[in-house]
Amino acid sequence: MANLKFKITLAFDGSAYHGWQGQNSGLGVQNFIEIALGRLFPSHPPVQSSSRTDRGVHAAGLVAHFEIEAGEWKMREEQLRLAINSGLPEDIRVIDASLAADGFHARFDATGKEYHYHVWNHPVMNPLIRAFHWHVSRDLNFEAMTEAAQALVGKHDFTALTSGRDGILGDPVRDLRRCEIQREGYHLTFAMEGSGFLYKMCRNIVGTLVQIGEGKIQASAMPEILASKQRTMAGVSAPAHGLILHRVLYGGIS
Amino acid sequence: MANLKFKITLAFDGSAYHGWQGQNSGLGVQNFIEIALGRLFPSHPPVQSSSRTDRGVHAAGLVAHFEIEAGEWKMREEQLRLAINSGLPEDIRVIDASLAADGFHARFDATGKEYHYHVWNHPVMNPLIRAFHWHVSRDLNFEAMTEAAQALVGKHDFTALTSGRDGILGDPVRDLRRCEIQREGYHLTFAMEGSGFLYKMCRNIVGTLVQIGEGKIQASAMPEILASKQRTMAGVSAPAHGLILHRVLYGGIS
Repeated sequence: MANLKFKITLAFDGSAYHGWQGQNSGLGVQNFIEIALGRLFPSHPPVQSSSRTDRGVHAAGLVAHFEIEAGEWKMREEQLRLAINSGLPEDIRVIDASLAADGFHARFDATGKEYHYHVWNHPVMNPLIRAFHWHVSRDLNFEAMTEAAQALVGKHDFTALTSGRDGILGDPVRDLRRCEIQREGYHLTFAMEGSGFLYKMCRNIVGTLVQIGEGKIQASAMPEILASKQRTMAGVSAPAHGLILHRVLYGGIS
Repeated sequence: MANLKFKITLAFDGSAYHGWQGQNSGLGVQNFIEIALGRLFPSHPPVQSSSRTDRGVHAAGLVAHFEIEAGEWKMREEQLRLAINSGLPEDIRVIDASLAADGFHARFDATGKEYHYHVWNHPVMNPLIRAFHWHVSRDLNFEAMTEAAQALVGKHDFTALTSGRDGILGDPVRDLRRCEIQREGYHLTFAMEGSGFLYKMCRNIVGTLVQIGEGKIQASAMPEILASKQRTMAGVSAPAHGLILHRVLYGGIS
């Protein structure tokens, strides 16, 4: 019997989870999605994600897919979202669920990802947004950060901006298509879009840019940092709770 | 010996507190402010607030004052904010602290208050903002809500829009100077500014406006609801967690 494939788009508050995949130390978002799917489909389908977010990182539009046997499918397509959400904790929501083409693969078909990193730049943290913003109390030089961010755009070997116990598996070159900083009052958003990101690359970019904003690293040093391929040449890693996987791109279309 | 008076402006995530004042059931934000002040000043000054927010309601700019004996004052004015914050949990922050005139009173001198109520209007809740937004899943008629909101502006007897075990002490007439609804994507903000607000008045206004948006109450019924002075004529009370005391006005200046 033929299989049916579904694409789901997820938003979650990652505060309580040990990343997408989970670890020995605790459960991941994936575990809860699979528990919810197991309540609906006897074959207990595994779920394939576009991205493995780290512990404490959030998502506004993570894409995943799963497959079931055609005989298990007994509802209407528009009921699926609600059916899965009924089995999920309130910090994880399916925002979209639909039938996908047979050949669709959430990870291999992705042509890009967009991450947003949020900073609150004021001497006192705003308690209403503390779960999703990094508190940076010192004054930041916005022009210096923007100059350094521009130097990151394009195809580069990002070895200096990845952290890795795990090391880099394969090619460390990534195409960073956009790295922009938006400021609105005390709120800064670092928007990064690229073909893909190495382990902790977004958080290391933001940590380095913030230290450039603080004057601890020169903006003009960015090309040299990249060329060094040395993690120790770059800045700190920004904390996980400020990072949100904003959306995953397929064929150039969000 | 003379006393010194201080004005403080507070932001807090009210999720964990039983209102500003606390109740037999649990501690209020006020208790924690007074504990923090007690660590700094031997006289353990009580704090007087502009507003008594309900259980679960948040604040971005609540104003309060306290008085100490001049002999207790051993720091510089600009150190006070950090000194109080050092004794507070991270969901309560002093965002401003300064010396005030002898005659200043946070409550009696206030000339107005501005509250914001946040709604997420989409079939699926956004888990990243669930702590500060009411989830309304049905489509809302924005024009009907705006028409009804306009009918509330001005001096009215708001008895129909207050809830009260406690009853109304004194005059039930309030001057609602602004009642506007802003829409940005699925996010609605109800901005209410007035001379003062009766018990649960903001939440009852929003609950009634949302039921008008859902078509359960006619927009044109608002004057009749006010005139009835009957709570049962109005709509539901919106939940506490969507409400934020945005700022307190003094002499027309924020």
